Amino acid sequence: MSGSTFGNIFKITTWGESHGRGLGVVIDGCPAGIPLCEEDIQRDMDRRKPGQSRYTTQRSEADKIEIMSGVFEGKTTGTPISLMVLNTDQRSRDYSAICDVYRPGHADYGFETKYGFRDYRGGGRSSARETLARVAAGAVARKILAELNIKVDAYTVSINEIEIDRNNFDLAERFNNPVVMPDKAAAENAQALLDTAIKNLDSVGGVIECCVTGLPAGIGEPVFDKLDASLGRAIFSIGAVKGVEFGLGFEAAKIYGSQNNDNFTFKDGKVEKLTNNSGGILGGISDGSELILRAAFKPTPSIAQPQKTVNSKNENIEIEIKGRHDPIVVPRAVIVVEAMTAITLVDLLLMNMSAKMDNIKKFYN
Amino acid sequence: MSGSTFGNIFKITTWGESHGRGLGVVIDGCPAGIPLCEEDIQRDMDRRKPGQSRYTTQRSEADKIEIMSGVFEGKTTGTPISLMVLNTDQRSRDYSAICDVYRPGHADYGFETKYGFRDYRGGGRSSARETLARVAAGAVARKILAELNIKVDAYTVSINEIEIDRNNFDLAERFNNPVVMPDKAAAENAQALLDTAIKNLDSVGGVIECCVTGLPAGIGEPVFDKLDASLGRAIFSIGAVKGVEFGLGFEAAKIYGSQNNDNFTFKDGKVEKLTNNSGGILGGISDGSELILRAAFKPTPSIAQPQKTVNSKNENIEIEIKGRHDPIVVPRAVIVVEAMTAITLVDLLLMNMSAKMDNIKKFYN
Amino acid sequence: MSGSTFGNIFKITTWGESHGRGLGVVIDGCPAGIPLCEEDIQRDMDRRKPGQSRYTTQRSEADKIEIMSGVFEGKTTGTPISLMVLNTDQRSRDYSAICDVYRPGHADYGFETKYGFRDYRGGGRSSARETLARVAAGAVARKILAELNIKVDAYTVSINEIEIDRNNFDLAERFNNPVVMPDKAAAENAQALLDTAIKNLDSVGGVIECCVTGLPAGIGEPVFDKLDASLGRAIFSIGAVKGVEFGLGFEAAKIYGSQNNDNFTFKDGKVEKLTNNSGGILGGISDGSELILRAAFKPTPSIAQPQKTVNSKNENIEIEIKGRHDPIVVPRAVIVVEAMTAITLVDLLLMNMSAKMDNIKKFYN
Amino acid sequence: MSGSTFGNIFKITTWGESHGRGLGVVIDGCPAGIPLCEEDIQRDMDRRKPGQSRYTTQRSEADKIEIMSGVFEGKTTGTPISLMVLNTDQRSRDYSAICDVYRPGHADYGFETKYGFRDYRGGGRSSARETLARVAAGAVARKILAELNIKVDAYTVSINEIEIDRNNFDLAERFNNPVVMPDKAAAENAQALLDTAIKNLDSVGGVIECCVTGLPAGIGEPVFDKLDASLGRAIFSIGAVKGVEFGLGFEAAKIYGSQNNDNFTFKDGKVEKLTNNSGGILGGISDGSELILRAAFKPTPSIAQPQKTVNSKNENIEIEIKGRHDPIVVPRAVIVVEAMTAITLVDLLLMNMSAKMDNIKKFYN
Repeated sequence: MSGSTFGNIFKITTWGESHGRGLGVVIDGCPAGIPLCEEDIQRDMDRRKPGQSRYTTQRSEADKIEIMSGVFEGKTTGTPISLMVLNTDQRSRDYSAICDVYRPGHADYGFETKYGFRDYRGGGRSSARETLARVAAGAVARKILAELNIKVDAYTVSINEIEIDRNNFDLAERFNNPVVMPDKAAAENAQALLDTAIKNLDSVGGVIECCVTGLPAGIGEPVFDKLDASLGRAIFSIGAVKGVEFGLGFEAAKIYGSQNNDNFTFKDGKVEKLTNNSGGILGGISDGSELILRAAFKPTPSIAQPQKTVNSKNENIEIEIKGRHDPIVVPRAVIVVEAMTAITLVDLLLMNMSAKMDNIKKFYN
Repeated sequence: MSGSTFGNIFKITTWGESHGRGLGVVIDGCPAGIPLCEEDIQRDMDRRKPGQSRYTTQRSEADKIEIMSGVFEGKTTGTPISLMVLNTDQRSRDYSAICDVYRPGHADYGFETKYGFRDYRGGGRSSARETLARVAAGAVARKILAELNIKVDAYTVSINEIEIDRNNFDLAERFNNPVVMPDKAAAENAQALLDTAIKNLDSVGGVIECCVTGLPAGIGEPVFDKLDASLGRAIFSIGAVKGVEFGLGFEAAKIYGSQNNDNFTFKDGKVEKLTNNSGGILGGISDGSELILRAAFKPTPSIAQPQKTVNSKNENIEIEIKGRHDPIVVPRAVIVVEAMTAITLVDLLLMNMSAKMDNIKKFYN
Repeated sequence: MSGSTFGNIFKITTWGESHGRGLGVVIDGCPAGIPLCEEDIQRDMDRRKPGQSRYTTQRSEADKIEIMSGVFEGKTTGTPISLMVLNTDQRSRDYSAICDVYRPGHADYGFETKYGFRDYRGGGRSSARETLARVAAGAVARKILAELNIKVDAYTVSINEIEIDRNNFDLAERFNNPVVMPDKAAAENAQALLDTAIKNLDSVGGVIECCVTGLPAGIGEPVFDKLDASLGRAIFSIGAVKGVEFGLGFEAAKIYGSQNNDNFTFKDGKVEKLTNNSGGILGGISDGSELILRAAFKPTPSIAQPQKTVNSKNENIEIEIKGRHDPIVVPRAVIVVEAMTAITLVDLLLMNMSAKMDNIKKFYN
Repeated sequence: MSGSTFGNIFKITTWGESHGRGLGVVIDGCPAGIPLCEEDIQRDMDRRKPGQSRYTTQRSEADKIEIMSGVFEGKTTGTPISLMVLNTDQRSRDYSAICDVYRPGHADYGFETKYGFRDYRGGGRSSARETLARVAAGAVARKILAELNIKVDAYTVSINEIEIDRNNFDLAERFNNPVVMPDKAAAENAQALLDTAIKNLDSVGGVIECCVTGLPAGIGEPVFDKLDASLGRAIFSIGAVKGVEFGLGFEAAKIYGSQNNDNFTFKDGKVEKLTNNSGGILGGISDGSELILRAAFKPTPSIAQPQKTVNSKNENIEIEIKGRHDPIVVPRAVIVVEAMTAITLVDLLLMNMSAKMDNIKKFYN
C-alpha cells in the first residue's frame, strides 16, 4: 500500500490509524515564507473534531495538532512540514465482537484479503479518523490559497431526501447548524430526519457541494492531471464517497448542447462566461469561473440494526454494530472536501508556473 | 503540461494532436511474455474509429495502429511498447473562422490563457482524437486482464432522456446498434432523438456504464490510490465527462444505511455479498463483486447553431461551428471508458503483488 | 522542496531538522506481515548515534526511535509506518556567530538563495542529523532483505591517505574500532591521523565500501531506474558524498576490455562470473554476483580554523566554527550507506515482481 | 520495466531497440513558446551518429530526427513533444552466434533472467543506440537552457592512461579530433593508443568531464532530489558508466577540510567562491559556481578476442564477438552526458520556481 502520497509538487503523505498512537501528515514541497502556526491549523481541525453535536460520535478527542518540523521563526522554511495528532481516547474496548467479522459496508473484507490480517480496532487505517491528516494538510494549502485570494467553501446540499432551497441559500448560515447546510429551514428538516434515523438505529447519506472562487483560468494539466481528473481522484479518495460531479454534472447528460454550452463575453475588461454549466472547467483546465463540484456520500455503514455477515471461520452470522458511530458522515466531511480540494488546487497552481517559457525567463532573469 | 503520463507500474504516456502528424502512446512497465500483434490492438481501434455511423464525424481515418517497439518474436519483451497512428485526413481547411475565437464549451480559452497560444486545428491536443492513444494502450491492458480472466464491458445506458430498460438488458445487443445500447428498443428511440437533434443543429449527451467481472478482492491502494479514486481520475480525464459514480452512486446519498449496506454470506466455498450496492468497492478496495461505474458525458460542444463568444481581440462576436463533428460523443467513448478502466486495473493489480511479505518470499525463493 | 520522498513502491518520506522538535520518516508500501518492533530499528540507530567515540560530536542524544503507526500485534500491517525521534539536546546556544554567515563547505548559501531565509540552528534540514530518518527506514528495509537472505554490509576502506590492506580484510573487525575499518592495523593508523587532525583544528574525509550478498540476478529497471542509477541517486543524496563507483569504478576507465570483462561459467548448477569487475551490475541489472559500491566522503566542512566568508550584509569576514562537530563523517555514515542501499534494493526487488506475465498469472491463479 | 521515464516536471519517456523499427522519446512538460525545429535537434544527433571516424561503428544510420507532435507554427505548444528516428540499417544478419549466449560485460544474462527471453538483435533495448533518444530530448532541454544563458559542455579528459594536460586545455579543440579531447597533443596520443587496441582486437575506456556555466545558485531539491543525486542517477543511467564524481570527487576524500572548503567572498556585487573544489554543489544545491562532474566509462564489452561464457543450454563455451562495434564508447558518449545533464538541470530549474511564496504571489498577481 504505497498509496498514501498525493500531489506532484505540493505533496502530502499521511499515516496513522484510528486506535494507534496517533495520525499525521508530512507536507513536502510547501513554499518557504508562509506564516504558519498551530492555531492556523487547529481552526480547521476543530471543524472535523468529533463530539460537536448529537449527530457525531461521542468519542472524546481534542485532536490537538502539533507542528513537528518545517516552520522556523513562524514561517515555513521550504522543508517538509510534519504535522501530528496523538490519539488520547483509545478507550480500552472489547473488540471480540468485530475482530474476526466482516462488517457490511466496511473495508474489513478487502483489507483482510489484501494483507492477510488487519488492525480491527475501529477500522484501523480505514477509519474516517484518517481524514484528520488531510484536514491538517488542507489548512496549510488554504493558507497558500488565501495569499492568492482563492477561497474554498463547502457545505451540505442534501441529506437523504432533504435538499436545500437555492432561493434560501445563505453561505454564512452553514456554521449555525450542526448539519452544515446553507439554508436554515432545510437544516431543521434534516435534523428531524436524522433524529428519526437515530431512533431507528439507522444512518443516512447526503451530498456536499464545494465552491471555489478566485481561481485563475489556465489551471489543470491535460490529459491525465486535468483539473477535474485530479479533483476526481482527490474527492473519491475520501471514504464513503460514491459519486462526484462538476457543474451540471449528471444533468448535463440530459440536455442539449445548445443548452449546456456556456457562451463567452468580454465585459469590464475581461473574458467571462454568461452561464456556468461547466462548473468552471473546460477541457480539464479552469475557465476563470467559479469551480463547482458535488460529492455523494453513502450512509454510515456502522448501524446497530442486525445485519448478516461472515466471520473468519466462514460461518454465516448476525451482528449489531454498537459503539460511538456518527449516524451521518456528511457534516464532518465538509471540511475534508474543502481540504482535498485545496490541496489539489495548490499542487496544480504550482505545476502551472512552468507552462510558458516567457515566465521562466522572467523568473530567472 | 507534464500530465500526459498515467499509472505507477503499468505506465502510459500519450502524445499527439488532432491535425498533427499522428498520435501515439508509450506503454512502460508492460510485463514480458504476452503475445501481442497489431490486430489485437486494431480491433479496439476500430470500435473508436470515426465514420462508422451517421452519428459520428465523417472524417476519414483508418486509424491504423503500428507497433514501433517492445515486441519481439510476437511477444512483449518487458521494454517500452511504442504504439503510433499516423494522421491521414488532415484536410487542408480554412481555420480563419475559429483560430482566434474561443469556442463555447471547448478548452480554447483555457489553453490560450495557460500557454499563450494554441494549436487551433481541430482543437489540437484537446481534441477527442487524443483518446485514440488511450484505446491503443487499453487494448494491451485488456490482453493482460484476459490472461487473468477479468472482463471489462462498457455500454450506453442513456442518451439524453432515453434510458435503457434494465429488464431488456442484453449485453450482446450493444454491438448491433450505432448507439452501443444493450437494449434494442431504447437504441431505436435514441436514434430517433439523435436524428431530430442533428436536424436542429444540436448535440446531446448521455451516460456510459462499465462493468468488470472476475476482479479478485483486495485490489486498490488506500488512501489516495484507492480503486475508486484511481478510476475516478482515469474516467474524469476523458474529455466531456462531467460526473462519475460507483454502484448506487448518487442514489446512495438518498437511502438509509440499512438499505445501502450489502450483507455478506459464505456460499459455495467463498465469501459473497447478497447485494452489490457498493459497485464492487468497499473502503477503496475491490470486494470480489462486479465492479460497476457510470460516467456522464455532456453534449458535444461543437454545434452549428449561432453562439455568442469573444475573439482574441476581445470583441464580442457570434459563431456557428461548421465541420465534421459528432452530434454525440457517447457511442465512440464506450471503448475509451473500457480502455481507461482496463489500464487502471492492470496498474493496481501489479501494485497489489507486493502487499504481503509471504508472497514476496514465495516469489524469491 | 518536494524532494523528500524516495522510492516507487517501497517509498520513504523524511522530515525534521537538527534543532527542531524531532525527525522522522514515513515508510509507505512496506509489505504486511513482517515482525517489527522498536528494538529492530534501535539497533541501527545506535550505530549512527553521536557520542560513541572521540571522533564524533559530543552532542548527547539517545536517538530513541518510536513506532507511531503501521504495526499491529507485532507485525507490519501494510499501512504507512511512521517512525519518529524527538530531539532532546537542543542545547540553548548562541547562534549569532553563524546565523547570518555562509559557512564554507556548507549548504547555507544555497538554502538562503533558494528559500529567502534558513533555519540556521545546526544547519537545520541540511544537518547530517537528517540521515537519522534514513537509518530508521533502512532498518525496516533490512528486515525485508533478511527474509530474502540478502545481506548489506558497509565499512570504511580509507580515511585520508590511510587505506585498508585487502590482505588483512576482516569484516567482523569493523565493529571493534571507532573508524569502522575491517583491518585492525589500518584502523590504528587512521586513529593516529585523526588525532593529529583534531589537534590541528582540521577535519578529514574517507571512502566507504558497501557489499551486498545474496542479491538475485535480474534486479534493476532500465533505462533510468537501473540498479546503478538508483543506487547512484541514493548514495549521492547523502550529504558530503562527492564520488560514487561500482566494481572497478574509475579504474575500469584505465584498463582494456579484455581485462575488464568478466567471463561467465556454468558451475555447480548455476551461471557464475569468473571475476567481478562489474561489481555485480551489467546493463543496469544485477548479475547474481556480489554488488560492490564505493562512496567518497569529503572532510567535515565545520572546522575551527579561521576561514574567509561573507555575511548577509555582504561584508567579507572571517569565521572560526566552534561547537560539537565530528572531525570526520565517515564512521557514522557507514550505517547510512547501508540504509540507503537497503531501501533502494527493496524498492527494486518489489518492482521486479511484475516483470514477467507468467509470474503474474501464477500470483492471481 | 517501468523505468523509462525520467524527470518530475520536464519528463522524458524513451522507447526503442537497436534493431527494431526505430527509437524515440516523448517529452512531457516542455514549456510553451520555445522556437523548435528538427535542425535544432539534428545538430546534436549528428554528434552521436555512428560512422564519423575509424573509432566508431561503421553501421550506417542517418539518425534523422522527426518531430511528431508538440510543435505548432515553429514553437512548442506545451503539449507532449514526440521525437522519433526510424532505423534504416537493420542489416539482416545471422544472430545464431549470440542469440543464446551471454556476452561477457553485456546485459544479456540479466535481461534473460528478468524477462524470460530477450531481443538479442544488437542488444535490443540494452544497446547504446538507446541513448539516441536521450540526445534528442537533450537538444530540447539545451534550447531551454540557452534561453537562460546556461551552457553545458562535455569533453573527454582521459582515454585509458592518456590524460589531457590542463595547461593545454582548449575547449574549442574538442571538435577538431575524433576523441573529443580539449587538448591536441593528448588527442593524438589517444588515437595512437586506440589504433593499437583495435589491432589487438581490444577496447578501451575513458573519462568524460562535463562543465556547466551560468547555473544560478539555489538549484536542487533536498534531500533526495539534490542536484548531485539527480545528476548521479542521470549519468549512471548511461550504459558503461562505472563511476561519477563532482568537483574534486574521490580526491576530496584524501585531503583536509581546511584544503577542501571553498571560502566565500563578496566581489563585484555578488557572492563568489575563491576556489571551486565543490564542483558547484553544496548540500545538494547549486552554489553559483561552475558545475563540474566526471563520469568513468568502462571499455566497450564487445571484443573480437576469444572469451569464455555460457549458452542457454548451460554449456561452457568460447565466443569471439564480431560485428560493427565501437572500440571505445567515450567519444560518442560526450553528447549523451551533455544531454542527460541538460535534461536534469531543466527539470530542477522548473522545480525550483515554487520554492518561495513571494515568487508564487508575484506570478499570480
